[in-house]
Amino acid sequence: MTSERAQFDAFVSIQLTKGKTPLYAQLADAILEKIDTGVLAPGYPLPPVRQLAKVLGVNPGTVVRAYKELEQGGRVISRQGSGSVVAERQIAVDSEPRDLSSLEEITNPEYEAEAESGAVNMRSISLNPDVVSIRQFRGILSDVLDRDGARAFSYTTSQGFLPLRESIAAYLENYGVKADPAQIQIISGAQQGIDIAARALLNRGDTVMTESPTYPGAIAAFRARGAQMIGIPMTPDGIDLTSFEAHLRRFRPRLVYLMPNIQNPTGYSYSLAARQRIMGLLRFYDAWLLEDDYMRELTYDKDALAPLKALDRDDRVIYLKSFSKIFMPGLRLAFLCLPQALLARFRSVKRLTDIATSGLTQRVFDLYLRRNLWPAHVANLRRVYGTQFRYTERRLEEILPSDATMTHPDGGLSFWITLPPNVDAAAFCAEAAKRGLLLADGSPFYPHGTDRGHIRLSHSTLTLQQVESGLSILQQTLARFS
Amino acid sequence: MTSERAQFDAFVSIQLTKGKTPLYAQLADAILEKIDTGVLAPGYPLPPVRQLAKVLGVNPGTVVRAYKELEQGGRVISRQGSGSVVAERQIAVDSEPRDLSSLEEITNPEYEAEAESGAVNMRSISLNPDVVSIRQFRGILSDVLDRDGARAFSYTTSQGFLPLRESIAAYLENYGVKADPAQIQIISGAQQGIDIAARALLNRGDTVMTESPTYPGAIAAFRARGAQMIGIPMTPDGIDLTSFEAHLRRFRPRLVYLMPNIQNPTGYSYSLAARQRIMGLLRFYDAWLLEDDYMRELTYDKDALAPLKALDRDDRVIYLKSFSKIFMPGLRLAFLCLPQALLARFRSVKRLTDIATSGLTQRVFDLYLRRNLWPAHVANLRRVYGTQFRYTERRLEEILPSDATMTHPDGGLSFWITLPPNVDAAAFCAEAAKRGLLLADGSPFYPHGTDRGHIRLSHSTLTLQQVESGLSILQQTLARFS
Repeated sequence: MTSERAQFDAFVSIQLTKGKTPLYAQLADAILEKIDTGVLAPGYPLPPVRQLAKVLGVNPGTVVRAYKELEQGGRVISRQGSGSVVAERQIAVDSEPRDLSSLEEITNPEYEAEAESGAVNMRSISLNPDVVSIRQFRGILSDVLDRDGARAFSYTTSQGFLPLRESIAAYLENYGVKADPAQIQIISGAQQGIDIAARALLNRGDTVMTESPTYPGAIAAFRARGAQMIGIPMTPDGIDLTSFEAHLRRFRPRLVYLMPNIQNPTGYSYSLAARQRIMGLLRFYDAWLLEDDYMRELTYDKDALAPLKALDRDDRVIYLKSFSKIFMPGLRLAFLCLPQALLARFRSVKRLTDIATSGLTQRVFDLYLRRNLWPAHVANLRRVYGTQFRYTERRLEEILPSDATMTHPDGGLSFWITLPPNVDAAAFCAEAAKRGLLLADGSPFYPHGTDRGHIRLSHSTLTLQQVESGLSILQQTLARFS
Repeated sequence: MTSERAQFDAFVSIQLTKGKTPLYAQLADAILEKIDTGVLAPGYPLPPVRQLAKVLGVNPGTVVRAYKELEQGGRVISRQGSGSVVAERQIAVDSEPRDLSSLEEITNPEYEAEAESGAVNMRSISLNPDVVSIRQFRGILSDVLDRDGARAFSYTTSQGFLPLRESIAAYLENYGVKADPAQIQIISGAQQGIDIAARALLNRGDTVMTESPTYPGAIAAFRARGAQMIGIPMTPDGIDLTSFEAHLRRFRPRLVYLMPNIQNPTGYSYSLAARQRIMGLLRFYDAWLLEDDYMRELTYDKDALAPLKALDRDDRVIYLKSFSKIFMPGLRLAFLCLPQALLARFRSVKRLTDIATSGLTQRVFDLYLRRNLWPAHVANLRRVYGTQFRYTERRLEEILPSDATMTHPDGGLSFWITLPPNVDAAAFCAEAAKRGLLLADGSPFYPHGTDRGHIRLSHSTLTLQQVESGLSILQQTLARFS
């Protein structure tokens, strides 16, 4: 008790001065310093907001915001109804990997399909397989086998099949990215790219910064390395830049993970101004950026802006792009365009992971690119999914009650819905599932799993008629919770 | 100096008594205890062999053997000419992954082939692509696409395509293994299986026991987890069982990694007695076993013994089998047959790693198994490679000088050669490469990289004529070093 009393006294001594740095940021910095120097131990309860505000002579909102910032940084844990406490500094490595079935649910529409047959699946983002031309694929495969014979089944190098790396480097010019085939690392899907980046760059206790919410597969990969995670709130223009800068300054992350186009799960795309500011900040605070450009092709009414990699003057952007996601997801093919300094390191981790990606898949996709079939495929996808997307968007607007909100993305295959206040997303999804509708609970998308009021809703595997059935169940479920 | 003196005094107090436990084992135990309790700090030099032998009143050979055991356990480092010192206890995680090009060299015959064109490659173990029937593969692929249409390109579950898991479970009966499809986890090649096992089971500082020498890809995967590695010497019947038991008792490893059939790189196969004894010891000391059965099909004159998994009465064997290695290496397909208790954990790590293995590859290989084409493929391989293997073996016997030795495996695609005394393998391989012959330096196969007098020589990618050219260069290189 005495020592708690002494620690509380520490707050009284905090001096805030009006000036360039906002008061809340000064307060957050001061508290963080006390945590880092051990004055405030893990588990120590922070003073109640009103009490501290009074002592310091500031507005309670200032204290709330300072606590919120520390919470986003994972340094303070907020407990419903019982205030905030200092978080454990040491993040344990996931020696007992948690159940990652949610990761599979949101990617694979056939996951546990047998147990849920008949349900409308608005949980998974995955293309309807029929968008792929089997005949075209067969033709290309046949040509590869004619050309390469049994060599098509041999190992390729760990870095990847050179002709494919050449095709990709050439293709990247369309995005304004100048790349050399030597910078391209072929990988078996985007998840592998994130996992390799985590293994190559992060050690236990390193800090990594992501959007909040973000892709759960990235959260899992970073946590498996024992990294400290900081989630920066998303706004319609991209991450909150004030919070981003404050956390860069305070936590000096080694790696930042962003999806600047049609962010998963919000669907927001970054403005050009935000992109430029981010590159400037990353240069100043010297962090690596992992840019996941998973969905850029599926912007419907305008082209996506150039990736951050195109603005990368000091070679710090690790550009990650999956082809298979909007082509043939089961083929597992993606690539990284890497900074020079990271080439050897990433290749070593790739070797450790699985030696090399399937050579046959690489040869087929290379020929597909060389025959310039990709642009027509993308145009077809935009036509098919654009119609469905706008339809779903319009119907959702009609259905959602006034106390729920939804995002209006430029593209993609899903919507991010904020449920009415006090509706718990897990309970909501369970109720919808009982009625025959699968939805993605939004909480696994939060780095610290704290936000429980959102769902992600996708139309990508459904017909318009199925979308109608799904939305009708959604409406009933909403009524049930109102 | 005073404290070193005091530490040296500690040795004087060691009491050895003649009895059931050999003197060297008592001595090793006593020294280990002093290391573990901090009496002997990292970097502390152990007393010279003769001096300690004299003080303790034992044969110098007893001290040598005790030091050697501690060295195998990674607890003591032996420095040429300057005695032994206590090793650092803390093994750092490989945050800067080392250059794993040797891992690629020994698997992929085309690795950096452009820079070495014209050289005879006896370094890589990989099948000549021509052993695969392209026509057959095309037929099966075509049937899969007719049957499954675009679904062939969809995700499969992380665990793997159910019909393939059923085919594999049925196939395992041929090995005397009773398996349920629910126990099978499909993976993208054997390296991925080892890496997933390391991530699922090992934490920093955990102990893992392997054969010495062993597969470098496994060493890399275990080290990347920050595991302590213990290498147990190989004998023609399998690992040295006395050393195995002593180290099990002393270090209580969490995981043991063995290749009981045609071990890589020695080519030795375990006797039935050794297999039974190993299973008994693992039960007693309660460790997981990762059994890598990568080459069982290629025993030439007799069938391989049943895998340890067939003797696994208490569900502790993680059975790892690559199909692609002796089928189509570029396809990247293997499986694990898992203990019940590990199913969920391994599936989670698989999701984290790459979500799922290529569905098309799984569908093709499933049909291949269902049509029962695998046995004929294996019989063909045995015929083709058996002839070549025996030829290479005979010619090697003629060529090797009397102070070099080679192993005489029951099968496989390579030989393990002990060079004449004082010939350094790296220097030898460099000299051979200059003359146009690529050989695998044996030192990366040792967990602690300490043994520098071996090479691995493979004939698998060569014609008999190329084998002759290679061996002729080998002979010249040997002459150069004699």
